Amino acid sequence: MARVSQEHLDARRRQILDGAARCFARNGFHATSMQDILSEAELSAGAVYRYFRGKDELIAAIANEAFAGIRGAFEDAARTTPPPLPDVLLGRVLRKLLQEQVRGEDRQAFARLVVQVWTETLRNERLATTLGEGYGGMRLAWAKLVDAYRDNGLMAADVPADHVARTLIATAQGFILQQALFGDVDVDVLEDGLRGLMSMSAPDVS
Amino acid sequence: MARVSQEHLDARRRQILDGAARCFARNGFHATSMQDILSEAELSAGAVYRYFRGKDELIAAIANEAFAGIRGAFEDAARTTPPPLPDVLLGRVLRKLLQEQVRGEDRQAFARLVVQVWTETLRNERLATTLGEGYGGMRLAWAKLVDAYRDNGLMAADVPADHVARTLIATAQGFILQQALFGDVDVDVLEDGLRGLMSMSAPDVS
Repeated sequence: MARVSQEHLDARRRQILDGAARCFARNGFHATSMQDILSEAELSAGAVYRYFRGKDELIAAIANEAFAGIRGAFEDAARTTPPPLPDVLLGRVLRKLLQEQVRGEDRQAFARLVVQVWTETLRNERLATTLGEGYGGMRLAWAKLVDAYRDNGLMAADVPADHVARTLIATAQGFILQQALFGDVDVDVLEDGLRGLMSMSAPDVS
Repeated sequence: MARVSQEHLDARRRQILDGAARCFARNGFHATSMQDILSEAELSAGAVYRYFRGKDELIAAIANEAFAGIRGAFEDAARTTPPPLPDVLLGRVLRKLLQEQVRGEDRQAFARLVVQVWTETLRNERLATTLGEGYGGMRLAWAKLVDAYRDNGLMAADVPADHVARTLIATAQGFILQQALFGDVDVDVLEDGLRGLMSMSAPDVS
């Protein structure tokens, strides 16, 4: 047998995943057949099944890549020292996520793929476990950030850091949804919105 | 033919919708068959098809009810005069949404149904139109609210009201997602989180 370089194997695997991601972003997981993916990736069944045993494995691989992208964006942002305020920081996260691409598809495709992954996760325990772990990691990283705001005198209210972290994560999730559904999210919408909230007179502080 | 009261017709329609909603919340739109719905609602095909021509009509009816519930919660909250601050107001919206029930299912079922409706909307133009209209209405109602905050000296930053409105809507959407995926949303998480953000030192204001 001819020896095949790791580079070649990786490139082939990428080609399959990109083709599958395009199909899924367009038509969803259920309406996409393995035949659709073979045609889209321009590969034979034999070439594809060497890498993935079927659609479920492809869905898992693509969902895991999407989770990793989102978790990475949150964790990278949380590592900045000293931490910029939430409008700048969450703006950075959203900008990175909106730039994530499904190769060969429009700007909205990644957001659409993420929304489909959420729905798939509702009935797929393996995906739910992976997503739960990633979400737990994001909450921890962002709660530390909120502690840093408080330690630096930037946040007056005495509320659990985890609750602020979850609220910031929820806001980013909501904008991914709005991008998927309406395709009209600019990062300055989120930045302005948070800036507006931060400029409000909070209860319990003067 | 025996005359059938409007009340009876409405009750029967409700029985079908509740059965379908339970099936959809559990198994999603794609994996649910009309036979599943007939069994769940304990009705014959003849009884059901008199009200709905098929699964697509049922999906549309259930999606429209979910949209109406969400839009109603936002618009009711926006009508309160004088408007409470965002933590109280959005807390009220989320509390109402988390109380929405799929009859006979657990507390999480409505949130799961909403996430499935989002995904369905990505490929269903009629649903997308309805959702787009509802979302537009919510944005307008909440932007007025933000104007009221500013007029009352409660918001210092000079940012577009629509951007703050979209950010608040995104936050609620994100919490519905967290409830669907993790089932652990208490409204005080959102209230605390917004309170924390509102107590921050915003850029551009002292």
